Amino acid sequence: MKNDILSLAQNLIRRPSISPDDQGCQQVIAERLEKLGFSIEWLPFNDTLNLWAKHGTTAPIFAFAGHTDVVPAGDENQWTYPPFSAEIVGDMLYGRGAADMKGSLAAMVVAAEEFVKANPNHQGTVALLITSDEEAAAKDGTVRVVETLMARGENIDYCLVGEPSSSQTLGDMVKNGRRGSLTGNLYIQGIQGHVAYPHLAENPVHKAVPFLQELTTYQWDKGNEFFPPTSLQIANIQAGTGSNNVIPGELFVQFNLRYCTEVTDDIIKNKVAEMLAKHGLKYCIEWNLSGKPFLTKLNKLVQAVVEALEKIVNISPQLDTGGGTSDARFIALMGGEVVELGPLNRTIHKVDECVSVTDLAILGKVYKSILEKLL
Amino acid sequence: MKNDILSLAQNLIRRPSISPDDQGCQQVIAERLEKLGFSIEWLPFNDTLNLWAKHGTTAPIFAFAGHTDVVPAGDENQWTYPPFSAEIVGDMLYGRGAADMKGSLAAMVVAAEEFVKANPNHQGTVALLITSDEEAAAKDGTVRVVETLMARGENIDYCLVGEPSSSQTLGDMVKNGRRGSLTGNLYIQGIQGHVAYPHLAENPVHKAVPFLQELTTYQWDKGNEFFPPTSLQIANIQAGTGSNNVIPGELFVQFNLRYCTEVTDDIIKNKVAEMLAKHGLKYCIEWNLSGKPFLTKLNKLVQAVVEALEKIVNISPQLDTGGGTSDARFIALMGGEVVELGPLNRTIHKVDECVSVTDLAILGKVYKSILEKLL
Ligand SMILES: [Zn+2]
Ligand SMILES: [Zn+2]
Repeated sequence: MKNDILSLAQNLIRRPSISPDDQGCQQVIAERLEKLGFSIEWLPFNDTLNLWAKHGTTAPIFAFAGHTDVVPAGDENQWTYPPFSAEIVGDMLYGRGAADMKGSLAAMVVAAEEFVKANPNHQGTVALLITSDEEAAAKDGTVRVVETLMARGENIDYCLVGEPSSSQTLGDMVKNGRRGSLTGNLYIQGIQGHVAYPHLAENPVHKAVPFLQELTTYQWDKGNEFFPPTSLQIANIQAGTGSNNVIPGELFVQFNLRYCTEVTDDIIKNKVAEMLAKHGLKYCIEWNLSGKPFLTKLNKLVQAVVEALEKIVNISPQLDTGGGTSDARFIALMGGEVVELGPLNRTIHKVDECVSVTDLAILGKVYKSILEKLL
Repeated sequence: MKNDILSLAQNLIRRPSISPDDQGCQQVIAERLEKLGFSIEWLPFNDTLNLWAKHGTTAPIFAFAGHTDVVPAGDENQWTYPPFSAEIVGDMLYGRGAADMKGSLAAMVVAAEEFVKANPNHQGTVALLITSDEEAAAKDGTVRVVETLMARGENIDYCLVGEPSSSQTLGDMVKNGRRGSLTGNLYIQGIQGHVAYPHLAENPVHKAVPFLQELTTYQWDKGNEFFPPTSLQIANIQAGTGSNNVIPGELFVQFNLRYCTEVTDDIIKNKVAEMLAKHGLKYCIEWNLSGKPFLTKLNKLVQAVVEALEKIVNISPQLDTGGGTSDARFIALMGGEVVELGPLNRTIHKVDECVSVTDLAILGKVYKSILEKLL
């Protein structure tokens, strides 16, 4: 299993599949799975390639989910080994995508193959949902596949996303939920004028400061057992013409909230509107909801993941909902159970991204063990 | 006098002398003055042309000061008459620079000419200080001429700047001082990071808000008999990478103060440093002093101006120090008396800039009368 995972991971890493360019990665995977009797369905949307492969036709559906695309390598001269050469040094496999997430993708494929070889008449369905755009716009990837599957009533019951969830050692952390992400684009209106005649103008920056004080210090909630407290950050702020003698006519403030299940996007929007009204501001605001928070409680999938890690890695994983977003937010819309388990995330999106070859082999065993418990 | 001023004003307006391009305006003026015995001295600095013309060699020196440059016309299609055609419609002369300040420039030249023709043996010196860059950078114009004259001990005792000072009717307002103008470029440091991990970052916008609250509400002084209170305006503010998931590493705030003689630039700088320290901010700040405040009290020049307006226009002017800056701030550094008197400022820097032909003729008479009182 170890060599099989490793050679597939190397094959994938050597294809510079910067989002949303798949570079043939999914074709390699599809050909392997097809040989073992998986049905192959291509779901391309615009520039994004998506693969939906299944073995079995009955419920429950267990799906591995992942992406073939990677973020750019940046300045290749800074890398110790070329980012698309998949060099192995000691126990480490180097390359862009090694940890995020061509390594876990290879482990999933091999785990699924070995499971169906050993259990040709397994109950339920083993599936793989693979996209070529998770890192960039993510508009034509998993979200569109999920829409398609839901439209035909083909809901995933258990989904294991291969995002690199581990922190210090393999399996020390499993993501069983994610916070929501909501962005506000706020335009506060004033009246432009000359700094020498402030009585003829209305400085939107001056007017907004007390509101910004309230916005940035307000405590939305205290979090809960599963989530850290909701947090708000101003990401961008801009006003002014560039001239030092013009009072700006408008202030732009963009803020983002990572919010937990103690609030909803509606509660947040209403509270911000209340603050703006309280401070007498003229404004317009556009909201952009990237994902609602979701949580997979301690039911079958989480239990299978925990048991597999305890048995194979001898570790009790921490269940966590912190950090950024992933495609898990889209899959969670189907109402099934979703967790994220993958290799160490220490080097992802960085120069000299790498993954332990031993960890990939263990991860393959863990993935296969989870399948055995659920199907 | 009326036709002479009018035709000179038209000649000047028809030259599109956008700062610092003089377009021959000063040559036209110099040739006229030279014929009447004025000494002509050219003081060019880089791209700026400056003229220092004198009749007489003894003290006191009375100088008219003005500029031949104009601000751009903007979209010429918005003008009722082409901005450089110097069209006369009824009593109004139209064109870019008609009011600011080719009209008053023409009135000054003709007033000086008529004065020396009528008083060939006048006491003191009649001078004209004319630059081609007042509206733009103003770095190589009046300020450099003033440095040159001061270096050789040739100080102007009385200076009348022809800036359009009038508000509702000709001569209703005379500027006998100006507020200082001080700009702060403030960079507040934070630590850049991902919005999902705010504990690893430090948002400089959030940290700065309480400081900004104090900065924008602090009362610097209550002004005095001659000056309105000091006022501060944030002109530009900027932070952020453009991405909605990055906590910015730095906040830029540019603010400008128009300050009166109740404070000094040092008092302001120290107070801002105190506020920044109080709020525990890491920062760096660059200060830019455009001009210190100055005031010409009710002595000989102001008296002559007031008397001339009372006699010729039958109006008692309001003495004022409000509004923007002008080259008067540089001339005031010589220690003499400086006032600004010119036509209505209602249309300056706007589309369809214009000036009353009658007002220009009266202005010429007022200028000549002031000369007669002082020399
Ligand atoms: Zn990923
Ligand atoms: Zn002017």
